Amino acid sequence: MGDRVAVKFAYDGTKFMGSQRQPHERTAESELLSALIKIGAISSAEENHFRVASRTDRGVSALGNVFAVNTSFRRQEILGALNASCNDVYCYAWAEVPDTFSPRRARGRWYRYHLPYHGQDLSAMTECALEFEGEHEFRLFCKPEGKVTLRTMGSVEVRLDGNMIIIDLRAREFLRNMVRRIVSALDQVGHGRASVEDVRSALQGNGRSLGLAEAEGLFLMDVDHGLDLSAGPLGPMTQMVAEERDRAMVRWQFNQQLLERTYLAPGFPEK
Amino acid sequence: MGDRVAVKFAYDGTKFMGSQRQPHERTAESELLSALIKIGAISSAEENHFRVASRTDRGVSALGNVFAVNTSFRRQEILGALNASCNDVYCYAWAEVPDTFSPRRARGRWYRYHLPYHGQDLSAMTECALEFEGEHEFRLFCKPEGKVTLRTMGSVEVRLDGNMIIIDLRAREFLRNMVRRIVSALDQVGHGRASVEDVRSALQGNGRSLGLAEAEGLFLMDVDHGLDLSAGPLGPMTQMVAEERDRAMVRWQFNQQLLERTYLAPGFPEK
Repeated sequence: MGDRVAVKFAYDGTKFMGSQRQPHERTAESELLSALIKIGAISSAEENHFRVASRTDRGVSALGNVFAVNTSFRRQEILGALNASCNDVYCYAWAEVPDTFSPRRARGRWYRYHLPYHGQDLSAMTECALEFEGEHEFRLFCKPEGKVTLRTMGSVEVRLDGNMIIIDLRAREFLRNMVRRIVSALDQVGHGRASVEDVRSALQGNGRSLGLAEAEGLFLMDVDHGLDLSAGPLGPMTQMVAEERDRAMVRWQFNQQLLERTYLAPGFPEK
Repeated sequence: MGDRVAVKFAYDGTKFMGSQRQPHERTAESELLSALIKIGAISSAEENHFRVASRTDRGVSALGNVFAVNTSFRRQEILGALNASCNDVYCYAWAEVPDTFSPRRARGRWYRYHLPYHGQDLSAMTECALEFEGEHEFRLFCKPEGKVTLRTMGSVEVRLDGNMIIIDLRAREFLRNMVRRIVSALDQVGHGRASVEDVRSALQGNGRSLGLAEAEGLFLMDVDHGLDLSAGPLGPMTQMVAEERDRAMVRWQFNQQLLERTYLAPGFPEK
């Protein structure tokens, strides 16, 4: 067909029942497909070879997921048209790709986890993070799906940002639940409930699983295909996202201010 | 009766249909009353002289509202019991008060507005803010309810904090919608759509009304009665509020990160 396009898209995972198409459930993928059909860009997922780079668990958000589809829809208008027809899914860049392009085959993936800071030992977590880098047996750090679990982790970085521990993980591909299981292990080490040795054993497939962190803290930050991306008119998306951001800040302020009063009550400083 | 108690309480206004009791609507006041009856602290609002310091519009949050009620419920347990029985209302301090104590009669009230920053002229807003201080005719800065509208404003302070303009207003009492109308006027001056002279005229009751800011940005920060407040076990409230705060931060991060990509797309820095 010679008209395959890849589109970078984002979604707030708390607003969907997962990313993947499922009957009778609102998912990021089903929202995108309805919009593609509604704007007349495709007739069906199958016919137009609709594919998505990464599936994310229910509750996980994505900032840089990618779909590809065969369509002759005008490139300068596709982002604005999709954003006008989607709720809670945001399309913000596109690239022409070859007919054979499959977004699941990527150079690299980048995930970020937001872990509330409750006094965890950050240097122990940083030390432990290094254990995950390189080739390991990730059998105890995934949901078994019959796949090979010997995998290579690029990097795991831990840093503190305000009340949040930010954990960035990079690899070519991840197994299901892998990031959430690694983060849970790091958190347990940070709280002194597991040792770096426990993690080392688990990475050889021995010992116990170290739990599963909540989905809501996880973002798929990017899937890298080395694409030559273009932007284009995004429609009202930017303003809507700015408003959502500002509403989130007001909610943060409310809860932060209230917490400060309970810490300091009754004599909290009246400014 | 000799057993009147005042309680400081907070609520996130986005979770209620206003503060005041209304039939068939979930309000902060009705939530509190149900909890007081459920824990056996009172038999009815009327019989136990339940009174609230400040009514807030639908969507407005409170951090330091105050109610008073006659009850012999054990003081050391009342906050924990109320927090266990309320959803989205948080009680965090109490004080013994005289039988005659009416929370509506306060020494001062403090409101804070969170106005998204979109390049407004802050020095013009600061200059304009001073116009409101002292005694003025606030007829064009309230919802008329037949009350006297000559009022005295203590202070109006404007400052920038990240993406938000924070506006703090203090007075002994406020008219209905007064803060939201003052904030809207400041915002219009900040955008150059109204002049300080327009505001000066409006404060003499002349000229046009200058609009009404959205309710969601407004917090009732405190009502000051000069009480000798005590804290006490708060139950699981603190942890719940910390979790709400962290969730709000993750939502903020999602929207902020997405905005940055649309500003910089397509070549956003892959960290």
